[in-house]
Amino acid sequence: MYELGVVYRNIQRTDSAVADKLAALGSATVHEAMGRVGLLKPYMRPIYAGAQVSGTAVTVLLHPGDNWMMHVVAEQIRPGDIVVAAVTAECTDGYFGDLLATSFQARGARALVIDAGVRDVKTLAEMKFPVWSKAISSKGTIKATLGSVNIPVVCAGMLVTPGDVIVADDDGVVCVPRAIAAKTLEAAVAREALEGEKREKLASGVLGLDMYKMREPLEKAGLRYID
Amino acid sequence: MYELGVVYRNIQRTDSAVADKLAALGSATVHEAMGRVGLLKPYMRPIYAGAQVSGTAVTVLLHPGDNWMMHVVAEQIRPGDIVVAAVTAECTDGYFGDLLATSFQARGARALVIDAGVRDVKTLAEMKFPVWSKAISSKGTIKATLGSVNIPVVCAGMLVTPGDVIVADDDGVVCVPRAIAAKTLEAAVAREALEGEKREKLASGVLGLDMYKMREPLEKAGLRYID
Amino acid sequence: MYELGVVYRNIQRTDSAVADKLAALGSATVHEAMGRVGLLKPYMRPIYAGAQVSGTAVTVLLHPGDNWMMHVVAEQIRPGDIVVAAVTAECTDGYFGDLLATSFQARGARALVIDAGVRDVKTLAEMKFPVWSKAISSKGTIKATLGSVNIPVVCAGMLVTPGDVIVADDDGVVCVPRAIAAKTLEAAVAREALEGEKREKLASGVLGLDMYKMREPLEKAGLRYID
Amino acid sequence: MYELGVVYRNIQRTDSAVADKLAALGSATVHEAMGRVGLLKPYMRPIYAGAQVSGTAVTVLLHPGDNWMMHVVAEQIRPGDIVVAAVTAECTDGYFGDLLATSFQARGARALVIDAGVRDVKTLAEMKFPVWSKAISSKGTIKATLGSVNIPVVCAGMLVTPGDVIVADDDGVVCVPRAIAAKTLEAAVAREALEGEKREKLASGVLGLDMYKMREPLEKAGLRYID
Amino acid sequence: MYELGVVYRNIQRTDSAVADKLAALGSATVHEAMGRVGLLKPYMRPIYAGAQVSGTAVTVLLHPGDNWMMHVVAEQIRPGDIVVAAVTAECTDGYFGDLLATSFQARGARALVIDAGVRDVKTLAEMKFPVWSKAISSKGTIKATLGSVNIPVVCAGMLVTPGDVIVADDDGVVCVPRAIAAKTLEAAVAREALEGEKREKLASGVLGLDMYKMREPLEKAGLRYID
Amino acid sequence: MYELGVVYRNIQRTDSAVADKLAALGSATVHEAMGRVGLLKPYMRPIYAGAQVSGTAVTVLLHPGDNWMMHVVAEQIRPGDIVVAAVTAECTDGYFGDLLATSFQARGARALVIDAGVRDVKTLAEMKFPVWSKAISSKGTIKATLGSVNIPVVCAGMLVTPGDVIVADDDGVVCVPRAIAAKTLEAAVAREALEGEKREKLASGVLGLDMYKMREPLEKAGLRYID
Repeated sequence: MYELGVVYRNIQRTDSAVADKLAALGSATVHEAMGRVGLLKPYMRPIYAGAQVSGTAVTVLLHPGDNWMMHVVAEQIRPGDIVVAAVTAECTDGYFGDLLATSFQARGARALVIDAGVRDVKTLAEMKFPVWSKAISSKGTIKATLGSVNIPVVCAGMLVTPGDVIVADDDGVVCVPRAIAAKTLEAAVAREALEGEKREKLASGVLGLDMYKMREPLEKAGLRYID
Repeated sequence: MYELGVVYRNIQRTDSAVADKLAALGSATVHEAMGRVGLLKPYMRPIYAGAQVSGTAVTVLLHPGDNWMMHVVAEQIRPGDIVVAAVTAECTDGYFGDLLATSFQARGARALVIDAGVRDVKTLAEMKFPVWSKAISSKGTIKATLGSVNIPVVCAGMLVTPGDVIVADDDGVVCVPRAIAAKTLEAAVAREALEGEKREKLASGVLGLDMYKMREPLEKAGLRYID
Repeated sequence: MYELGVVYRNIQRTDSAVADKLAALGSATVHEAMGRVGLLKPYMRPIYAGAQVSGTAVTVLLHPGDNWMMHVVAEQIRPGDIVVAAVTAECTDGYFGDLLATSFQARGARALVIDAGVRDVKTLAEMKFPVWSKAISSKGTIKATLGSVNIPVVCAGMLVTPGDVIVADDDGVVCVPRAIAAKTLEAAVAREALEGEKREKLASGVLGLDMYKMREPLEKAGLRYID
Repeated sequence: MYELGVVYRNIQRTDSAVADKLAALGSATVHEAMGRVGLLKPYMRPIYAGAQVSGTAVTVLLHPGDNWMMHVVAEQIRPGDIVVAAVTAECTDGYFGDLLATSFQARGARALVIDAGVRDVKTLAEMKFPVWSKAISSKGTIKATLGSVNIPVVCAGMLVTPGDVIVADDDGVVCVPRAIAAKTLEAAVAREALEGEKREKLASGVLGLDMYKMREPLEKAGLRYID
Repeated sequence: MYELGVVYRNIQRTDSAVADKLAALGSATVHEAMGRVGLLKPYMRPIYAGAQVSGTAVTVLLHPGDNWMMHVVAEQIRPGDIVVAAVTAECTDGYFGDLLATSFQARGARALVIDAGVRDVKTLAEMKFPVWSKAISSKGTIKATLGSVNIPVVCAGMLVTPGDVIVADDDGVVCVPRAIAAKTLEAAVAREALEGEKREKLASGVLGLDMYKMREPLEKAGLRYID
Repeated sequence: MYELGVVYRNIQRTDSAVADKLAALGSATVHEAMGRVGLLKPYMRPIYAGAQVSGTAVTVLLHPGDNWMMHVVAEQIRPGDIVVAAVTAECTDGYFGDLLATSFQARGARALVIDAGVRDVKTLAEMKFPVWSKAISSKGTIKATLGSVNIPVVCAGMLVTPGDVIVADDDGVVCVPRAIAAKTLEAAVAREALEGEKREKLASGVLGLDMYKMREPLEKAGLRYID
């Protein structure tokens, strides 16, 4: 449930030393490092391929067809933030375009994650302002109703608390809670470190069956080979 | 983000004097009384028509295709509770059938709200155990992975904290946070009180245009009548 | 494209002698009689089973999450009308409940067809006010933006012009343009007349293959029977 | 891939002594007895609640918007059969109504399972001819293109071979291959036999945790209780 | 409702001086200039990124799985036209590929907008023939049933009358009725003229809150800032 | 229905002389050459544009959220194969990423076709390992349950038997059964041969109406031209 009509100005952001490093690890590795939770629903897709970012969440709760609060959240952005926008009901309208992106970028925002639609996507790609959204739509919005800024929101099925870390790339969007961000970074880095060696082995033709020692458990589980 | 593998045994339930009274008001009136927030997504549908309940939420987080934690949550049910089940990824499997319903009912549960599938729906209807779910499916589940019980969960797009009040009927499912349950009940009762009189007027042929004094604001907004 | 902010008070309704008789024939037969066009998308479902109606369309164009114009259209209803409501963008909110239904019923409306959501469905069923909708949702709406009344609208993929006939039952919703309503009634009655005889034959075990003389065209088309 | 334009007249039906008994066990129990495979996708829903059937599959492959082969399959129906209809592309048209149902019923068919739409659903319910379908739609079809009868088809994601057993109820539709039908019946009966005792225990308040001896494995898996 | 089996050869196209200039403004700006109506549903997506066109609509009504009328409409294309294709029921088949595109391009068509599927998308991209469609599919179609050409059609939820202007880009597809095309162009140009200045201000760090003077209305609406 | 827990090591692959040549013809032409059957549902999309492949199917049946069998199937890959992965229930989890792709590529696989999700899509594109999938998702999977390898599976609505030919490109994925692969290749080549000439004619302005001699059949069908 949501508190309406409030803007929290002081939020506790995850330490940027942690938040910034998660981008390089990617959403899949970070998601694994968290124990396979934290992922926003896979309908959230990047508007252009190749962007890979992390940053601290500032959140905004919107009403369907109304982007008034997008201007309110702009003021709360600090360099290194990613804006996370939720809507109180399902909506595919285009809440965000090149003008707002110019403003967000000027404030230091790294990306927008929005459980609704955006527009001007060609210009956004040229500006290199990445967006993960549910839809792309020319449909504009009005400015009539109060939502809130920097309250915990549910975005694409995941709870996002202001100050959490958002990691987003072509595979999707993950939310890492502030309290476990440092631990998650550590676990993700450790995971990543093992991958290079594994990749080399697999490239040389070694099978995962042998590398992960799966033959015995598979046999125990009853797998039968038939010639 | 979710804490996995934990069961919180002591949760603060909303006072039953409040929780129990919300049922009669219905999900639509309660949703309005809260300022039009709190609603689970409308894909959550009752497995049979006519049930109308309220109760305190005990929550369970499940993994796709795995209903092990449903047995764990059963033990945490107290009379007057409604079980709210979330899944870490989209899944339509049938997590719940007549055996679990028998157990839940024996523990005093009033209903199940699950962002996945259920089965044995004919028997559940005969038992008068109401369920609101995303799907109906014969597909069974395994019992292999730990989730959690009585942590805050996102169910059908809405954050549900253990002890919140759930109000569910043919129109949908609303979550009323414990902190505002009493205030919401009051507001909903007040709303309801006005409805009888309004209904009578409208039934006699009075128009909403006149009853709500909308003609002037409509004219101001520019509405034109053309003969 | 739509003209906004206007209410057409004088529309040419299809003759009630024609409009009223189409109900008994049902949406499937009427749809066939029109040459298999005129059907609204099949996601439009009745909120309760068994209703079968026809009537003249009064139309209303709504904005997402805003039901202000529902009160405006109420005044334009005459006995025998069916209200057809379209929305300028996809929306599942509950635009209509028991109060509006009381008002519509008092004005003589026979049903509502709405490309969005409704609520209070239990009460609507008790009132015997049928609704065909895209969704059921407790989610309420605001009253802030002008749409229009009695302009041609696209509802669930079909163009509906005020005064057209709407035929709706458990199979779906069909729109019959005023200009061809009489001809369609005639064709539908003729179709219906043949059905009784056919049904009897089929019930006695005669095959459609023989009754419709399909064996030869099937053979010509190359159908092979394999023992 | 499908062979087009053929009708296989002689198919090996599962022994009716087996096929007929599976109905009473229901789709969920049968699906479990098969090792949790065999289920058609859960979008397949009954057109009215309460029907529970089993029977031997006769199959028909249709083209989108064309129900010509429905008349061809009618001739191949024997008492105790259930017609399973697949379409070569996604389609929600109403391929089947009361006339065809009259014919199917006269031939001894117990039900229709169709990965498309049907119509005249009110009459079908009155006739007590159950249908499981993807959609309900007034939209009629033409009779122009050859499909096939009694070839293996994929219906709602599941391979159905003519002569297999279909089990369908409010929970969904399961296909039991002929080769394992007897074994599946046996396993399902065994499963069912245990349920009565379990239900009694659970009704008396015994928890699944204890009845299924889950406490130890849960603890081993690391479940922690927090007071 | 649709008239079937007719081809209107003489349609009143919007003046090309107006129609051609709308492309540069883009679908989002044009949609705003029209008062936020006219947009086709956002499931309509370009088959390749970057195309931005406008032109006069010639329309075609198709049946599911049947592209016969695509050849009929080809003859009615004049340089500067955009073909708008609607289907009488939902269908994702590939109605259009490189051969038809070659023909359309030879006749001077600028694009295709189709509420169904297309194929040969790699070749279409190489040919620089843009398409906005609901789906991409290899599935071919037959040539058996008459539809119509140059009648008003509903395409992706929007009424398109022959001769209207279509504006399409990466954000979506807008239909501008002929009667208001000149006025819309004017309004869109005026809108566009203001954007450059706004963009500069926002890029320099001025907030929309100040530029649009939103602080006072937000305060009036009750927005509270919490430190 | 599926046999679980088995791996067939010896499958009859379509002759590579046939399988390899189908790629160049593309999924649309091959689909036509087969009589318009064989296509997987159009929700199967390539993770990057431009890949066009054919190869022999090795199949794997997975459980939701469990990719254990992906390691088992890796061992059965031979150069020229395409892995076809089906799941026993709907799932969008990311079953496959860059490590498995490295292994598959080292074994000689040409592509993956999976009725679920994949991840590491940026790396997969850089590796030029094409995938056709239902979803892209960071969500990882566990390794706990046995499926099967090289049994016939239903993938995206189509039956795929091990050794069949898979043809995939930007338009979609087609399965060509081994028994008709040579004949299909021949028919597809013949079709293709005619296309060059047709394209030239159409490019010169000749209409399909004339090239395909459609004017007479259209007139017979009743098409009317109105000036």
